[in-house]
Amino acid sequence: MQQQVLVSAHRLQEFGQAVFEKVGVFPQHARQTAEILVDANLRGIDTHGIYLSSLYARRLQKKLFNPEPDFHFEKRRAGVGVLDADFSLGQPATLEATRQAVKLAKDAGVGIVAVKNSNHFGAAAYYANYMAEQGCIGLVMCDGECDVIPFGGKEKFLGTNPICCSVPSGEKPWFCMDMATSEVAFGKVRAAAEAGKTIPANWAVDRDGNPVTDATQAYAVVPMSGAKGYALGLMIEIFSSRLTAMPYGAQIIRKFDDWENKSFMGHFIQAIDIEAFCPLNEFKKGMDELIEDLKSQPKAPGIEEILIPGEPEWRTKVTREKQGCPIRKEDLDLLRRLGVDLGVPFPA
Amino acid sequence: MQQQVLVSAHRLQEFGQAVFEKVGVFPQHARQTAEILVDANLRGIDTHGIYLSSLYARRLQKKLFNPEPDFHFEKRRAGVGVLDADFSLGQPATLEATRQAVKLAKDAGVGIVAVKNSNHFGAAAYYANYMAEQGCIGLVMCDGECDVIPFGGKEKFLGTNPICCSVPSGEKPWFCMDMATSEVAFGKVRAAAEAGKTIPANWAVDRDGNPVTDATQAYAVVPMSGAKGYALGLMIEIFSSRLTAMPYGAQIIRKFDDWENKSFMGHFIQAIDIEAFCPLNEFKKGMDELIEDLKSQPKAPGIEEILIPGEPEWRTKVTREKQGCPIRKEDLDLLRRLGVDLGVPFPA
Repeated sequence: MQQQVLVSAHRLQEFGQAVFEKVGVFPQHARQTAEILVDANLRGIDTHGIYLSSLYARRLQKKLFNPEPDFHFEKRRAGVGVLDADFSLGQPATLEATRQAVKLAKDAGVGIVAVKNSNHFGAAAYYANYMAEQGCIGLVMCDGECDVIPFGGKEKFLGTNPICCSVPSGEKPWFCMDMATSEVAFGKVRAAAEAGKTIPANWAVDRDGNPVTDATQAYAVVPMSGAKGYALGLMIEIFSSRLTAMPYGAQIIRKFDDWENKSFMGHFIQAIDIEAFCPLNEFKKGMDELIEDLKSQPKAPGIEEILIPGEPEWRTKVTREKQGCPIRKEDLDLLRRLGVDLGVPFPA
Repeated sequence: MQQQVLVSAHRLQEFGQAVFEKVGVFPQHARQTAEILVDANLRGIDTHGIYLSSLYARRLQKKLFNPEPDFHFEKRRAGVGVLDADFSLGQPATLEATRQAVKLAKDAGVGIVAVKNSNHFGAAAYYANYMAEQGCIGLVMCDGECDVIPFGGKEKFLGTNPICCSVPSGEKPWFCMDMATSEVAFGKVRAAAEAGKTIPANWAVDRDGNPVTDATQAYAVVPMSGAKGYALGLMIEIFSSRLTAMPYGAQIIRKFDDWENKSFMGHFIQAIDIEAFCPLNEFKKGMDELIEDLKSQPKAPGIEEILIPGEPEWRTKVTREKQGCPIRKEDLDLLRRLGVDLGVPFPA
C-alpha cells in the first residue's frame, strides 16, 4: 500500500480556494471550484479531486484558463439556453449552467443548457446532485480528450465521455449514475501497469488495435460492451460538441500535455422539473418503493448486498466527512510543491 | 439455414393493416402500427417486425389492448406533457407522443412527453428517426417486462430497457443508436440454445445467479458491462415508469405469457429542436465533419470499415426495399395461421 495521509475536507477546501485566489481567480469561483473538487474526494473519486488544483493552477498561470471570465448566458427558448464560459475554470461555468438549467426547468418543465468555451469540470455528479436537490432529475454529459477507440478502429478518437444522472428519492442515498462510457478509465490500466498486473482482454488495445492483457502494452481503452458503448460515447460527443460547434474528442487538446493551447470544451446540462409530472413527494415515494424492492432482491453467490448506483460514493462521503480524505503520497508531493510555489502551505 | 421467403414491405404492410382492422383497430392506427412494424423488418430488426402482429391481434381479441383508444394529451408546461394512451397499441400512442414532443420542442426548444397506459411500441428507432426528420435530436426510452438481473442480484428485475437516439446529418445514414442495456437480448441466448451453441460467460446467469456458457441453462441476462449497464437500465426504468407511476420491470406483465391482465407501460420521449442552438444546416455540416473524420480513422486488424451507429440497419433497409423482407419459416407459419383465423391471407 502507498503511504497516504488523511486531511479534513474543510482544510482541503481552504487550500484549494487559496490556491485559486493566488493565481487570480474570482474569490467566488475559487470557492466553488475547491468545493466541487473536494466533493469528489469525499465521494472517493480522487481522480477528480483536489490534486487537480495543481493542473488548474498551472494552466491559469499560463493564461490557458481565464481567471476572471465574463460568462454570457443566452436564453434561446423557454427551455433552452447557451452559456459561453469565456474559458473559465469548468467548475464555476458548469455550476452556472446548472443553475440556469434548473431555472429553465422550473418554468418550462425541462431545461437544457449547452456550455461552450469551457474547461474540464471535474466530476459530473456534483452538478447532477445539485439539480436533484432542487427537485429535478439532473442529466450531465461531457466529452473529453480522446482515449477511446471507435468500434472497429484502432486509433483514439472518443473521450471517455461520462454520462451522469441523479434522481431524488425520499430516503438517501439517491440514485446517482456517473460513469465513463469506456469499458474502464485509462487510469485503471495505468495502475495495473504500475503494479505489474495483467488486465482483462476486453479493457484495452495496443498500438496495432489488438486486445492486450499486458497493461504496459495498452495504448487505448475500448468502449464499454463494444458497439453499444461506442454508440453511447458518440452520442455524448454529439451532445457535448455539435450543438455549439466545439471541438470533439480527436480535436480536444490534452490538458496534461499541451501547454500552448486553450481548451474549447463543451458540456450538456439538462434538468427535468419533476413537479411538471407529479407532486415531488409522490415521485419520491415511488422512487423509495422501487429502491426498496430492488435492494430486497435475492443476491448472487458471494454478494452481500445489492447497491443503488451512487450508494458506494454516498457511504464513502459519510465516512470521509468524519475521518478526512486520504491523499496519496504522490499527490501529497504534488500539492505540497504547489503550496510552496504559491505561498499557500498544504495542510499536511 | 432456416427456410425463409422474401415478401415486399408493401405487402407486409397491407397484411398488417388488414389484420389490425379486422380486430377492430381504428384504420389510421392499424396503418401506423403496420408501417412501424414493417419498418423494423426493413431495417433488419425482425424481432420487432411484422411477426408481432400475431401477438398484438391476439391481445386485441382478448380486449387486453384497446382497439379504439381515446388518447388524452395534457400539456403541463411549455416543454413537457403527458399522454394517456388508454391501453392503445403502443405504436400509434408513441407516434402521437412523438408528434407532441416535436411540437413542444419547436416552441420551447426541448419537448418531453411521458406516455402512460401504453403497450409494447416495437422498435424505438422509428420514433427517434421521425424526430430527426423534423430537425430534432430524438431520444426514446422504454422499460419492459423483466429479463435482466440487477448488478449483484440473481433474480430478473429490470427490462432489457432500450435507449434510442437519432441525430440528423447532411449525408445519410444518420446517427441512430438503438440498443438494449442488457449485454445481449434474451433472443440471442435462446437462439444459441436452439442451435446447441455455447454463449460467452458474460451474457447470462443460471437460476442460482452463476454465469453460464451452456445456453440451455441460462435463466436471465446480465446488464451490459456490469454495474454500468445496471445503472443505465435503472435510469431508463425510472424515466419510463416513475414520472407517471407506471409499473416497473418486475411488476410488468409478460405479454407473451399473461393472457389475463392488461399492460400498463410507460415510455419517455424527448425532442430537442436543433434550431434552438444553431442553424440546422450548420449543425448537419458539423455532423458530416465528425462522421467523415470517424469513418476515415485507421481500422482494427480484420476490420474493413468503421460504421456509424444505425448504418448497418440503413444498408439493410436499402437492400430490403428492393429485394423484400425475409420472413423466417416459423414466423411464416404463425402469420399464415393468423391470416386464416382472420380471413386475411398472408401474402406468401
